[in-house]
Amino acid sequence: MDDAADRGGRQKGRGTPTIRDVARLAEVSIGTASKALNSAGRLRQETRDKVVRVAREIGYRPNDLAQSLHRARSMTVGIISNDSFGRFTLPIVEALEGELSERGIAIFMCNATDDPERERQHLDQLLGKRIDGLVVTARRADKRAPIGPQANGLPVVYVFSQADDPTALSLVPDDEGGSRLAVDHLVGLGRRRIAHVTGPERFEAVRLRRHGYEAALAAHGLAAEPGFYLTGVWSEAWGREAIGQLFADGAVPPDAIFAGNDQIARGLTEALRDRGIRVPDDVAVVGFDNWDVMVSAARPPLTSVDMNLEALGREAGQRLIDMINGERLSGIRRLPCSLVVRESSIGAPPATLPQS
Amino acid sequence: MDDAADRGGRQKGRGTPTIRDVARLAEVSIGTASKALNSAGRLRQETRDKVVRVAREIGYRPNDLAQSLHRARSMTVGIISNDSFGRFTLPIVEALEGELSERGIAIFMCNATDDPERERQHLDQLLGKRIDGLVVTARRADKRAPIGPQANGLPVVYVFSQADDPTALSLVPDDEGGSRLAVDHLVGLGRRRIAHVTGPERFEAVRLRRHGYEAALAAHGLAAEPGFYLTGVWSEAWGREAIGQLFADGAVPPDAIFAGNDQIARGLTEALRDRGIRVPDDVAVVGFDNWDVMVSAARPPLTSVDMNLEALGREAGQRLIDMINGERLSGIRRLPCSLVVRESSIGAPPATLPQS
Repeated sequence: MDDAADRGGRQKGRGTPTIRDVARLAEVSIGTASKALNSAGRLRQETRDKVVRVAREIGYRPNDLAQSLHRARSMTVGIISNDSFGRFTLPIVEALEGELSERGIAIFMCNATDDPERERQHLDQLLGKRIDGLVVTARRADKRAPIGPQANGLPVVYVFSQADDPTALSLVPDDEGGSRLAVDHLVGLGRRRIAHVTGPERFEAVRLRRHGYEAALAAHGLAAEPGFYLTGVWSEAWGREAIGQLFADGAVPPDAIFAGNDQIARGLTEALRDRGIRVPDDVAVVGFDNWDVMVSAARPPLTSVDMNLEALGREAGQRLIDMINGERLSGIRRLPCSLVVRESSIGAPPATLPQS
Repeated sequence: MDDAADRGGRQKGRGTPTIRDVARLAEVSIGTASKALNSAGRLRQETRDKVVRVAREIGYRPNDLAQSLHRARSMTVGIISNDSFGRFTLPIVEALEGELSERGIAIFMCNATDDPERERQHLDQLLGKRIDGLVVTARRADKRAPIGPQANGLPVVYVFSQADDPTALSLVPDDEGGSRLAVDHLVGLGRRRIAHVTGPERFEAVRLRRHGYEAALAAHGLAAEPGFYLTGVWSEAWGREAIGQLFADGAVPPDAIFAGNDQIARGLTEALRDRGIRVPDDVAVVGFDNWDVMVSAARPPLTSVDMNLEALGREAGQRLIDMINGERLSGIRRLPCSLVVRESSIGAPPATLPQS
């Protein structure tokens, strides 16, 4: 291949072989070379073969840029995150990337860091690249303003994020359903005094998870005891502190705690351990997020609700393609969570006996 | 703006206004419209103003694709990760994105998931998009094969990753220097029996950090005691287990432990706590990575070596631009780490006295 390049197919340095180089080396006109490579027009098979062989030898590849000018599709989409790409958005973006790259679509990644001006610049840049569609993802405190009006008509999917716009399509996990899975599991294990220790109520996810918790208790004929619903921050320290409140002198303690995330759940298990309260024998614990690092390092490992972020990312990719193909989609779609059961709710499996 | 669009500047649906639309509405030729928008040629100021006003009204933006065909630069670069984008690569990629987007360069993100075939496909796709340069990042087990030969001549920077190719440019953290910071700090605090509990030796980072640990001890006239260097896996469970070995009956225990990462360090502190050994009074602990979630949740919070991943990402962006501008850069560059000091080495600050 280097030999072929030295024959003149490549310019010096990093020049890329062009259709002109192919034509020159195949001793045909540029129009003929183009026809041969696009399987268009009428040519002698011999000529076509020669052009294709030369193109392969010198490493010519058709210019996507030039093609996309005629094709009306750039085969690119953009992703804008209003937050840095983190623990939640990453699995989503990876799954989305997998879904789209299989279809030959490349992804521009933009981080707008919650700065509207930076978002606008990114959007302008992406529109200048003639993207076919856009995915917007975010930290999920609450609804966000729809993407700028200059994107009018562009297919947009909001994922792990909701646009404050009824005509937009938003894909989010079903937080309420996730809570129901956790509470149903604990009730199924015989627990009746189930507390919920969670994050800040300004997060819609916190409000939805609380609603799911209360609805699931009610469905089992149980009520949330006063003092069993505690909001704080998303940290282990808050989980540890909450144990002090739930197990204060005179309080009737819970026999299970459903935590708003895995960090809180881990803090709960640590503080219970410090007090000599056994997990799950005395108190079962369930977390939310199924974050591998947390659930596996906790003692005991945590049962947790999984938001199925990869499925959310794949779904976003598929729906974006539908929209690029002309479908009109809108509304908020909530995708199911699942429960991953570990020792913090069901205890350790009995030790296996030696074989002999 | 919608009014202007309705006047005919936009096609129905998601059509994008073209130079043709601008020319029609401004009642000039396409050539004149182009000159006016590119501030080229000789035109009456009145004509120029009219064209610019119309272009703004209908939301016309010059087509990057068409421009890049003439400019020889696509103003795009690709990033390929051989691993999924994770805790280490993400801060790097974010900083890189910030550095490049400020210069109007957009980034294609590709995840090759350690699959050479998928990497090849991504690379072909990126070359088809006529990227100006490429960044390759990876999980850092060891050197990787250089990116495929079809990228011959393309500016490539390897970051948090090393190519097995002396002509390539690789940017990595200075692991040895990071270890020296940790050991110097502990020696400065009066510790003399310093153990090192770390990850698998197949990671070059483990070997370099060990070398830095031993070199720093030697520089202070100390030696690594037999049994004070322990390798295992990158987990909290391994950190907990290592305490069992270091504090086994009959062993002379360390007065400080430098851990190969923050998860191991956290496991160490938990197991020390379980045994009633005080951190840092009896044993000081220093981690590596300065991973916020781990260092802040540990009891006490962890002193840790920070690899300055953002600086690494910015550096990668700047060097890639240098290479796109024609500089030839090669070799392995090791960027400095820093030490972030917290309670696990120096103890809690004295409680402040009430003012009155």
